[in-house]
Formats: sequence, structure tokens, C-alpha cells
Amino acid sequence: MAGNSFGQLFRITTFGESHGVAIGVIIDGCPANLDIDMKFIQSELDKRRPGQSKITTQRKESDTVQILSGIFEGKSTGTPISLLIPNEDQRSKDYGHNVNVYRPSHADYVYDAKYGIRDHRGGGRSSARETAARVASGAIAKLFLKQQGIEIFAHVTSVGKINAPELQINDLSALLNIREQNIVRCADPQSADEMIEFIDNVRKDGDTIGGKISCIVKGCPAGLGEPVFDKLHADLGKAMLSINAVHGFEYGSGFAGSELLGSQHNDIPQPKAMDENNFKTTTNFAGGILGGISNGMDITFTTAFKPVATIMHNQQTINSLGEAAEIKGKGRHDPCVVPRAVIIVEAMAALVVADHLLRQRSNRL
Amino acid sequence: MAGNSFGQLFRITTFGESHGVAIGVIIDGCPANLDIDMKFIQSELDKRRPGQSKITTQRKESDTVQILSGIFEGKSTGTPISLLIPNEDQRSKDYGHNVNVYRPSHADYVYDAKYGIRDHRGGGRSSARETAARVASGAIAKLFLKQQGIEIFAHVTSVGKINAPELQINDLSALLNIREQNIVRCADPQSADEMIEFIDNVRKDGDTIGGKISCIVKGCPAGLGEPVFDKLHADLGKAMLSINAVHGFEYGSGFAGSELLGSQHNDIPQPKAMDENNFKTTTNFAGGILGGISNGMDITFTTAFKPVATIMHNQQTINSLGEAAEIKGKGRHDPCVVPRAVIIVEAMAALVVADHLLRQRSNRL
Amino acid sequence: MAGNSFGQLFRITTFGESHGVAIGVIIDGCPANLDIDMKFIQSELDKRRPGQSKITTQRKESDTVQILSGIFEGKSTGTPISLLIPNEDQRSKDYGHNVNVYRPSHADYVYDAKYGIRDHRGGGRSSARETAARVASGAIAKLFLKQQGIEIFAHVTSVGKINAPELQINDLSALLNIREQNIVRCADPQSADEMIEFIDNVRKDGDTIGGKISCIVKGCPAGLGEPVFDKLHADLGKAMLSINAVHGFEYGSGFAGSELLGSQHNDIPQPKAMDENNFKTTTNFAGGILGGISNGMDITFTTAFKPVATIMHNQQTINSLGEAAEIKGKGRHDPCVVPRAVIIVEAMAALVVADHLLRQRSNRL
Amino acid sequence: MAGNSFGQLFRITTFGESHGVAIGVIIDGCPANLDIDMKFIQSELDKRRPGQSKITTQRKESDTVQILSGIFEGKSTGTPISLLIPNEDQRSKDYGHNVNVYRPSHADYVYDAKYGIRDHRGGGRSSARETAARVASGAIAKLFLKQQGIEIFAHVTSVGKINAPELQINDLSALLNIREQNIVRCADPQSADEMIEFIDNVRKDGDTIGGKISCIVKGCPAGLGEPVFDKLHADLGKAMLSINAVHGFEYGSGFAGSELLGSQHNDIPQPKAMDENNFKTTTNFAGGILGGISNGMDITFTTAFKPVATIMHNQQTINSLGEAAEIKGKGRHDPCVVPRAVIIVEAMAALVVADHLLRQRSNRL
Repeated sequence: MAGNSFGQLFRITTFGESHGVAIGVIIDGCPANLDIDMKFIQSELDKRRPGQSKITTQRKESDTVQILSGIFEGKSTGTPISLLIPNEDQRSKDYGHNVNVYRPSHADYVYDAKYGIRDHRGGGRSSARETAARVASGAIAKLFLKQQGIEIFAHVTSVGKINAPELQINDLSALLNIREQNIVRCADPQSADEMIEFIDNVRKDGDTIGGKISCIVKGCPAGLGEPVFDKLHADLGKAMLSINAVHGFEYGSGFAGSELLGSQHNDIPQPKAMDENNFKTTTNFAGGILGGISNGMDITFTTAFKPVATIMHNQQTINSLGEAAEIKGKGRHDPCVVPRAVIIVEAMAALVVADHLLRQRSNRL
Repeated sequence: MAGNSFGQLFRITTFGESHGVAIGVIIDGCPANLDIDMKFIQSELDKRRPGQSKITTQRKESDTVQILSGIFEGKSTGTPISLLIPNEDQRSKDYGHNVNVYRPSHADYVYDAKYGIRDHRGGGRSSARETAARVASGAIAKLFLKQQGIEIFAHVTSVGKINAPELQINDLSALLNIREQNIVRCADPQSADEMIEFIDNVRKDGDTIGGKISCIVKGCPAGLGEPVFDKLHADLGKAMLSINAVHGFEYGSGFAGSELLGSQHNDIPQPKAMDENNFKTTTNFAGGILGGISNGMDITFTTAFKPVATIMHNQQTINSLGEAAEIKGKGRHDPCVVPRAVIIVEAMAALVVADHLLRQRSNRL
Repeated sequence: MAGNSFGQLFRITTFGESHGVAIGVIIDGCPANLDIDMKFIQSELDKRRPGQSKITTQRKESDTVQILSGIFEGKSTGTPISLLIPNEDQRSKDYGHNVNVYRPSHADYVYDAKYGIRDHRGGGRSSARETAARVASGAIAKLFLKQQGIEIFAHVTSVGKINAPELQINDLSALLNIREQNIVRCADPQSADEMIEFIDNVRKDGDTIGGKISCIVKGCPAGLGEPVFDKLHADLGKAMLSINAVHGFEYGSGFAGSELLGSQHNDIPQPKAMDENNFKTTTNFAGGILGGISNGMDITFTTAFKPVATIMHNQQTINSLGEAAEIKGKGRHDPCVVPRAVIIVEAMAALVVADHLLRQRSNRL
Repeated sequence: MAGNSFGQLFRITTFGESHGVAIGVIIDGCPANLDIDMKFIQSELDKRRPGQSKITTQRKESDTVQILSGIFEGKSTGTPISLLIPNEDQRSKDYGHNVNVYRPSHADYVYDAKYGIRDHRGGGRSSARETAARVASGAIAKLFLKQQGIEIFAHVTSVGKINAPELQINDLSALLNIREQNIVRCADPQSADEMIEFIDNVRKDGDTIGGKISCIVKGCPAGLGEPVFDKLHADLGKAMLSINAVHGFEYGSGFAGSELLGSQHNDIPQPKAMDENNFKTTTNFAGGILGGISNGMDITFTTAFKPVATIMHNQQTINSLGEAAEIKGKGRHDPCVVPRAVIIVEAMAALVVADHLLRQRSNRL
């Protein structure tokens, strides 16, 4: 119950510290006979890897993924798929300063409190480097979903107080193109420019800034999600909240929905034309999920990220004896996590949907 | 994996439909030798039960809980505790209208899509009646937490656009007194009056309204929560999102935190005085949780509820053939769920913290 | 992790003590739309219930099962099925003698050691009465398996040193008829007579005797079972070893197979005729399972039961202070468990196979 | 649910195929601050590795273990421990013969039936090579148990019909010395000589032979094991039955116990002397476990292994079309698995006991 696994039937277990030998993941439960496109997996990791632009950390990691098991002649065999990503650019000496001093808003203190021992180098297991394992396994979940006609798209919708306008999300590949043409991964080019400039200024100040990412799942069949505790949006919420720096999750109408009347919020089902098969409503405040179960419409949710805790300012803090101390951020850090987190959000969403796709197979005779 | 269980070590499994014989819950993993105060359990259920005021549903249920197992001479024995709550006031005839017609923003359609069969009476398993089983088992979790020095307090912080002012949460029992003196369960009496009047008007219009509930956990030791997927706030988030009508969850600084700079958001640790043992920071944007692990400070989070879908207006919809149909709400429903949901939020929070208390016992030699 | 659940996708959780209000079970994961034949479930319980013959305990329990949830108009709905069996004939006063004295080879001491508290009445949770919940839920698993063309048949193959001859197991319903015509549930009438006479003599001596039960699963498709830890026979073995009084499990060639050469033990596959689809081998030392996965042939296994610990003799023992004490069996007990355990073996086998049937659905695209 | 994990709180997940890049294991739940003795882990692997004597397979594997995560300055940190064992001597060309032909009593056919795809090289995932990962993780479990005062010792008790005499098991380190002085790992030197000669003759005949391994756990505290499904012996049984080639498991009196009277089989508790703390009985038919819970005495069990399926004879079989075919064993295989399986039995026993040690921590306030 140490909590390094996620999912029930499409299940991952990750391992590895920021400054250890490697990080990696075992995927247990990927259906057999899936074509495993290694180039796609690597391209997903490339979108998460550090050093990709001026507004991300300058740590140099190629994040080259190796497959150790579970694939035969390019296809999954139904046995555990093990993926390994060696660590390359570990400057552990950058971390001498936090052996006995607790960095503000970092997990240093709680690891000591929890375990009585702590690998202080780069945050150890609490480092966001662990998310590379999620992205690698999420890429395989995406391959499975694609084979089932399901697509996932996330994008940055705010940085600090800069909010992108709401977009019409229909053609995902067109939007993906736009998103990948700017380094902040916003699907609105004009907002992207503003966000990038703002982040760059924050970075120059030695500061950091939070932001938000929205995500859409298209093509999900009706019927996914279990009615009580494992509601589809509850599992999506847990998945998002398990990502480093996330402080909030909402789906469909979200927090704003709490201000509405039922007569405003109800989504009205539309009669089906002769050749239609799908459920459709006029509005989608439900975010594609009713009673925890997908209804076949677009699934929509948003995730809020706090600013990165490592800033290049002097800060007051305490040491492991509880005495006053001062600390200044060292190492190479992101001024804003959302540009790289977009791909993590997609990966976790893919893992949740893949898991529920398999779970749904048991619900009928 | 049908998803009717919650928790790993302090684990509940619920059963029962709105209009079946009974609902109930098995608690597997309650430590032995805990004093089981049946009056307390019943008093918790009384706070959730319908018909308690003019702003809740008028369904009449005494929600009398029976213990079937796991208690001997007033104490838990370590074996499964089974709690049963018979259903009393089932007016199933109120539900003839939704056998073949899908109520807007209800789960009727998705149950048919998922299972190919549906107990349409009162929403069957999707009914919020299932939460009585959560409250009963949550009451036992609260007894365990109390024995460990941990308290939980939730309260209504908004109804529609009416927001209660932010409160200083120190003396929980004083606040509990205030909260229980008004039927909307707001800890600010003046806001409570406004909320009650608003809900009552909404009810007279045959409409419904959403709202928000905030919650605080006091006395939680540092070290609870697992570092990667089972972060304490991720499990709290899933717990809250699994409650009927919840569309959003945030902890600590939440969504607002995404607009802040790191230099604003970092909580600065305070040196400990000679006789102090606890970790303390100037601010608590972290919401008592760092890297997914409790730091010993107050844990704070907020949950957003959409308006109830059943309104007493005529609404357009479709039938099971996809044809246009009209439906009008029948039955006895809440105009706003938050007054009764306060106790559900507390119950689910108690279950999460109890579970992580037990999990933490395995982390050291 | 308190261990009162069994199965992953077709999952049961049992509760209840021997002398409490009731025992029961929740089945979470029964596929929707299964016809639930309540008469069949009751008839299965009738085969397990006490008092059915002179060679079983004379405790009087009708073991009448009630359904609390999960069934609508005679069919499973996909939601948790809750079954309740009230306790009727609790003579708790029979158990005053073991409050502070540990009965030899009973679990009294270890419950105290484990929990520090013990419901001493009738063994509390360690009573074989708990198996009624397994039989009730196993009956539903059997209904599912029957719908999938799979049958299960268990029978007593030895009592003490009386061994029934090996049978040709083809027509299960004919054998079931023979088995149910004798009170020891042996499929060989002549051995049955010997066994019954022997048990009756043992009973008159105030003593008890062990025995063995063999089981066959017919019609199981190839492909069930997971290759490493959750091998089909490993899950069957755990299921059997979890039944009270079981001390051994073997499948296929079993212990005798350890004495054979590979050239004797290998099962030779037979070429398929034009119209055949199934895998067939000359011998079946494999017991229908290769590498943990069913091969489509008959699955065969045997389970060994120790003699019941409660005897009507004076026995030396100790009290809870570790002092010498004497105890004599009271209450109403079985002189031999195998006649009633036949139906428990079938129930547990059905639960394992049902679970793996559902699990297999996730292994392919 | 693909079944590549074992244990609940001390939990392992293994990966890797016989002829892939590497095999390995993640241990999730090892308590923090445990001294990790890498030499000990390697020495355990050396006892399992192939090529260690004339009566084992001649495949050459150094089985050198690498640690990828979870250890810091020689101690466990509470985060997942990942262990990697590269494959070195893969002669995949030895396996061209079984691409389309099913080897008798091997898992070739069932993998095709289950997954529709099969890595035929060396049995892929069904290879006993997977057990190296169990031995590596079991070694860490042993280090934890040793720190808690618990020792485990397994030894070969039969090969074919050659049975070692029953031993008095008191001084485990003395017995370990004797066992490790013969290549069959029997604790009785004279029986060892007979067994070795017999296996060598079987090997020369191109044949294989089965055998049995007994195991004892010393120093286990009373109270481990959960009362209903997760009985300590049920989990031990599943663990053993999950080892390749195992066909039977018994504990305490085992199968022989089914022939005894209760008056013979009951273990009589002995009064405690002033300075004693432990529970003691005259006999130990219970095998140290009552009602599924350890009583503090020696835990004893025996596991039966069938003969290895690969023999160097021509055998009739079928191909993937169901047509008659002939096959002759190739590759390098063990004539008898028990000498190497001794260490696998110990590893799995250690994993079960470590898991239940942690689970027991939740049973009391």
C-alpha cells in the first residue's frame, strides 16, 4: 500500500529517484497484440523532457526510453511491459544545501517525518522527474485508446492571471499543431505570446508562477466509470491531484457550476436522427459524465497548478533541529510547470480511460 | 473492480438501492478494541437524513442503523463491522415516469448504456441515499480519529453566489455549535440566514441551486499520505469527487493558487520554541500537505456541488428509443444538497484520514 | 487488508460471527442481466446447513437467505448483491467455558494474541458458520458459470483411512444424484456406507475424524488464469486453504506426481479431428492447467481436511494466564466436516473460476 | 489484474521474459531504514542461478543484480526498490522448434489460447527464470525478517521415491551448513548422496524427476494471518503454488492429518513456566497456525514439484493447427528442479511473512 501503483486493470507501478540510476515503470495489464510504436513513446517523452525551451528547467536529460520486457516483434504480449529511463545529468552537488535545511513549501520536512530517512538529492522520490515514467506508460495507454477510437488533448488555459479565451474544441489535430508551435503549449497563439513573455519575466526575477491546464477526451464510449466510489471523474480527479504541484480539479461546469440553478445547469438531451447512435445534449455542463459514468459526449476537465516552490530568492526557513535558517534556491528549475505538465495531464487521463475501458468489459454477461 | 469499496486498510464496501429493502456497509479493517458509541453513529445519520428541515427533501426516513457484526460488548473486535439501514418510505410509484424516459442530467441513460438493465426506482444505486452508508461508516472512522486526537469539521461556505466570509477556524466545538443552530449548516449566522431564504425561494420556484462546502482536519500528525499516486490530497479529492453532485475539489490555495507567484505562495517555516514539537509556517497555502504528505498543520479543502438535477419544471428530453419526450420532476427532492452533504464530506474525510493513519504504520521498521 | 474479501473482479466480502445477529456477504462484480434463481441459492445453502443428518452437528439453523440489494425483477443489475442469513439457534451459554480457557487446536488463543479482544461465543468469526456466506455467493457464481457452460462437482473421496475408488467423471448430473443419495456425499455408494458407519462410531466415541474432497471443473475454456502469481491453481489452492480445517491441496497429479519421471508425467496432446476444437491429451496429470492457465480439459484437485478440534473428551489445556486447565467439548459439533464441506469446496471453486472468466476479458484488444 | 504482483503491504511486481533484455522486480512497501546487504542478496541469487552443479541446467547466467532505486547510503528509504538482473546467455536459436509446435506439458498452447500471441523463446514469461526476481526480492524480505528475529529454512525432503528421514529442526544454521554442502540441498547427507546419484542417472537418460521441499519458519510472533480468506497458510499455499512445477501444498499434519482422529490430532497446550512468554503445545500438527493465525510455534509446510516437462526424448504432440507433430527437447534444462527451488520456496515464504508482519500492525488501536 505504499502507493506507487495506479490503475486496476491497466495498472502501472513507477520507481526511481531524481538523482538515482534510473527511473522507470512496469505496465501490468496492457492487452496483448497492441502495436507498440516506440517512436511515439519517445516523442511523448520529448514533450515532457527538461531543457526544451527557455521557459523550462535547463537540466539536460535526453530521457531516452528502453524497453526491457513485454514486447515481441513490435507487439505487446500481455505480459508486463517494463520501461527504463536512465538518469543522465544529475548534479547532486547542487543539493548539499538541503541536507539539514528544509526548503519552504518543499517535501523535505515531511519525508523526514514520514520515513526517518531522506534521499535529499533533487527531492528524491518527490521530484517531478517521476512523471517521466507516467508519460512513458501513458503513451502506451494512448496507443491503446487510439486503437479504440479515443483521443485526448490537453492545453494551457492560464498562466498566473493571463487566461486564454475559451476554444471550440473540434479538430484535435489542428489544435495540436497550434499548441506545439508555441513553447507554453497554449492553443491560442496570442495568449501564448503573452504567457511566454510573462513567464520569461518571472524567471528573470528568480520567481515562479502557477497556471491551469484543461483537457478533453473525445470518442469515449458511453458506460465507462463505476457508479459509487470509482466514478470516472473521481478517478480522473485523483490522477490529476497526484501530479506534482496540482492544487485543484474540476470537471464539466466545475466550481462555477455551484453558482447555477438546476434550470440553468441541466443539459437537455436531443432526439436522435435516424442514422445517429450517440447521446447528445444541448449544453455539456456534465462534462461528458453523469453519475460517474461517461455518456459518450466530450469529457472535459481543468487542473490548477501552484507555482514551483524553488525560487532564486533568499528565504527564511528552519533546519532539522527546528532552528531558524536561510536558504536560496539552487539547481535548475522550471519557472512555471504548465508547459511541460500538459503532456503529464494527457498521460494520466489516458491511463484512467484505458483502465475503465477494460473494467467495463466485466459489467455484462 | 466494480468500485463499491473505498480505502485500503480502513476499508468500506457499500450496497443498496434507493428503493430496495435496505442499504448498508461493511467496514473491514477497523482496529480492535475501539469503543463503538452507537448514539454517536445515529446522531451522525440524523444530520444526513431527509426531512430534517424545510430546505431538505420531505422523504421520511428514520435512517435507524443496526449493527449485524464486528462489535462485542461495545467494542470493535477487529472483524468486519456490518451496518444496516432499512429503507422505510419508498414511494416507488413516484418513479413510473422515468422507466423509459431519461431525466435530464440524471444517470438514467448511462446506466442503461453501461449495464443494459436499470432499477429505475428513485435512481436505484445512483441515488444519494447510498451516502447514508458512508455516513454510518464515517462515524466509526471519526471515533477512531477522535481516539487518536484528530478532529474534522465541514461547513457550508456558499450557496449559489452567496458566500460566507472566511472564518478563523480554531475552536471546532464552538463552530460546530453555531453550524448546528442553522438548517443550512453555515458557520456564519448572518450568511446562513441569507442562504436559507434564498434556498427557500428557489424551492418555491421548483428549482434547485448549487453550493460549496469547506472542510478542515485538525490534529493530523505529520507523515500521512503516500508520495506518488496515493497522495493524501489525491485520496481526499477522489473521496469528495465520489460524492453525488460534486464537480470540483481544491485544497490549500486551490484554484486561486494558480494565479500566484512562488514568492507569494511559499509558506515560511517558523523556528520552534523550546517546548514545541510541531511544524508551523506563517501561511498555509499548502493546506497542511506537502508533496502529498501531511505536515501536521490544519488540512483544508473545498468541494463544489452542482445544483440537483430534479426540478419541478417541464423539461424536454428523450426516451429510450431516442425520441423527443417531456418530463416533469416528481418525488421529494432537495432544493440544495449542501446542508445535508456537510456530514457526508466529513464522513469521507474521516475515512481517508483513518486509512492513511493505518497505512503509515508500515512505513518504518 | 483485513482479509474478509476474496476475488478481484467477481469479488465477495463476508461478515458475521457464529453467535451474532446474522452473517452475510456482498458480491461486487456480478455481471448485469444474470437470472438469479433464489430457489437454487437456497438449495445450495440447504446442503451446507447444520442438522441435516445424524453425522452432522445438531445445531438447528434454517439458513434462510434474504436478498437486500442488487437484484431487480429477478435479474442482477450490476450493482452489489447483498445476501443476509440471520442466525437463529445461538446457544451462547454453551460457550461460557471458553471465555478464559483455550480449547486445544482451536483459534481462541491466537485471536487473543492478535486482537487483544475476542468474541468467544461459538468461535466468533473463526466459526465455520462463516462459510454459509461463501455458499450463498458461490451459488450465484455457479449460476454465472452455468450460463457460460461450466459445471463444478465435488465429492468425498476419503474419511479417515477409508478411500473411495477412483471414479470416471463424465456425467456430472448422474454422479450428483448418487452423491446426494447418501449423507456423506460420496459418489461411490459402497464406500459411502462404510464412511457413514465409521463416522457414526467416531461420533458415539465423542471423537472426530478427517477426510478428503475431490473436485472437478468441466467446460472451462482454455486461457483462464494469470501466468505468474495468480495462476489458476494457485488461486484455487488459496481458496481451498481458506476453508476451515483444510490442511492440504493438490491438483492434477498432486503429491504423487512428485514421484514420477517426466517421461511418465507428460500429457501427450492428441491431433484434432476435423470437427474438433478442443485441446486434448492422453493423460491429464496437468489437471487441466498448464503454466497456471486452463487448457480446456477437466480441472481436477483434492483438498485434505483435518479432524474437527472439538471432541467430547476431557482434555488438558491452559487458561489465559498460561496456567494448566481442563476442558471438555460442549455445544453441537460435526464429527466429520467433509459431508457438509463438499458444497463449500464447490462454492469456492465457482468463485475462483468466475473471477478468472472476467479477468480473462482484459487480456486481448 | 494481470497477476504479476504479490503481497499487499510488502508487495512485489516482477517483469521479464527468459530471452528478453532483463528480468527484474519492484518492491513497494519495504519499511524505511532497513540495512540492505547487497552481498546477501547476490548470495541468495547464486543459490538459485543455473549452472551451479552437474544436476542443474548448464545455461550460464551470472544473475548479477543491480539496484536502480529505493536505497540511499545502504539503507532502504521507504520508496520503491527496483532490482534488475540482465539476461546474458540467451540461446534463442534453441527455440525455433517450438514456434508452431506445442511442447507436451508446457504452457505453449495455453499462451496462444490466452493471448493470441506468444514469445516462444525459452518459454517467455512462463520460464522459471522469472523466479530470480522472486529470490532477489525475497532476500530483502529475509533481511527485514532477520531484523525482526524471524528465520526461514527450506530443504529437499524427497526426490522421486527417495525420502529423507524426518529431521529435528532446531539449529537452523547448523542445518543450513549441512544442506549447502551437497548439491541437492538435502539436510540429511546420506539421503543427499542417494538423491544426487538418482538425479544424475535420470539426467543421463534424458529424463527428469519430481521431488518435495519442506520449509520451516522460526521465530514468527503469534498473531500473523487474517482470519477468513487471507489465512497465513492460505497465503503461503498460494505463494508456493505460484512457483513453476508445484502441484501440491500441505502444512502441519497435511494430507496425513485427514486420516487422524481429533483425539490424536489435537495439540495440547502446555502450562507456561514463570519466565516463559510463548505458547507451546506437546505436538505441532497445527504447523504453527490456528484458524489461519500464527501461534508463535514453528510454522511447517511441504511443497510437491512435478518433474520438469522438457525431456531429451522424442515425443508425440501437435502443432498450432492441431496436426500431429513430433518434438525433442532442446536447450539446457534441469533434470530436477528441487535443488534450485529450495531458495525460491524460502523467498516466497519470506515475502508472505513480511507482508503479514506489516498487515498485523493495523489490527489494534
